[in-house]
Amino acid sequence: MTIQLYGFWRSNAAFRVRVALALKQLPFDEIEVDILSGRQFDADYAELNAEHVVPTFVHEGHRIFQSLAIMEYLDEIKPEPRLLPADVKERAYARSLALVSVADAHPLVVPRVRKYLGAAFGADAAAIESWCRHWAAEGLATYERLLSRRPAAPFALGDEPTIADICIAGQVIAGALYQLDMTPFPNVAMLTKHCFELPAFADAHPFRQPGYKA
Amino acid sequence: MTIQLYGFWRSNAAFRVRVALALKQLPFDEIEVDILSGRQFDADYAELNAEHVVPTFVHEGHRIFQSLAIMEYLDEIKPEPRLLPADVKERAYARSLALVSVADAHPLVVPRVRKYLGAAFGADAAAIESWCRHWAAEGLATYERLLSRRPAAPFALGDEPTIADICIAGQVIAGALYQLDMTPFPNVAMLTKHCFELPAFADAHPFRQPGYKA
Repeated sequence: MTIQLYGFWRSNAAFRVRVALALKQLPFDEIEVDILSGRQFDADYAELNAEHVVPTFVHEGHRIFQSLAIMEYLDEIKPEPRLLPADVKERAYARSLALVSVADAHPLVVPRVRKYLGAAFGADAAAIESWCRHWAAEGLATYERLLSRRPAAPFALGDEPTIADICIAGQVIAGALYQLDMTPFPNVAMLTKHCFELPAFADAHPFRQPGYKA
Repeated sequence: MTIQLYGFWRSNAAFRVRVALALKQLPFDEIEVDILSGRQFDADYAELNAEHVVPTFVHEGHRIFQSLAIMEYLDEIKPEPRLLPADVKERAYARSLALVSVADAHPLVVPRVRKYLGAAFGADAAAIESWCRHWAAEGLATYERLLSRRPAAPFALGDEPTIADICIAGQVIAGALYQLDMTPFPNVAMLTKHCFELPAFADAHPFRQPGYKA
């Protein structure tokens, strides 16, 4: 199958899809859309993605947007190895964990939000950085509370990584971008240590992408 | 089966789950958690929901959080009527549409964010209202672009409402809370007109809940 991924090194959502594709051993071509320079609003890309965000996933000409929808799709077209557990209650827990980052923590630090903080409140770079650090830490704190109740073994749902681990690892990357100290989040740190020992996670890391700029 | 929903009249995420339960014809008891007064941080509730958000769904003692995870769970334990289409590509599109509100538009206007705008930037009530109006409109504009490319017939995925329609209707409710003019969003308005003709949607509307305060 032919897969293209419109992504960007810094995009947390693109990271998630990169990991999912690697775990499924599905080869893909990544096309860079520089979201820091506003290329997601260019007419060509806007035609491809009406939401003007990355990633956009293209599978044999069929486009899908939103990282969680893409990961669910991958699990449906190629069930092994599973990105969601087989058990219905465990699937729900995997999705709940994924959504802590996807739906609550990460949406608050994306480029359009950082930019609008400046426009709406005159926030300068330091204030925007502080905003991002706050929400990145909130996401990690939530994960820490959840993992302290049900420790990872070694992954959130058990022996194999799922969408939960992918999204938790993404949240840790967000923390790293904002230089967060991981000491208050030992369970999260342990889980992501196991994640990044896997090439699927390590190779998908933003800092390892061709376009990466420190 | 016994179902409890910890929710709140104003919660967009609780609205989604209420609609899903009604479409599935699953009776439930709703327990109010006043998120405007910070009751989601009370020790009892924090024990139930480590993320300190509503809703929490409890099915025969088993707890699930995050509205999208709950809706997917409902579709798995009671497949008819379907909340997601059967076709794999259509399922992906339904999830993508749902996530526009769940993962991009709605997270920006929740109580903890409104509150932190005050703490971080000294934003007053009018500035916070303006922030919320901006992001509610952005979500509707995205849905309008998507629905103008593939018009609802009469629902986003065809004859029957899915998680996509539930989340689009929720975004329209967010717009209503911030007094947005719907004129720029005719496709969205038409879709939600069909939604709210159904009792499952109409009865779940925030303004129809017992705790509603104008």
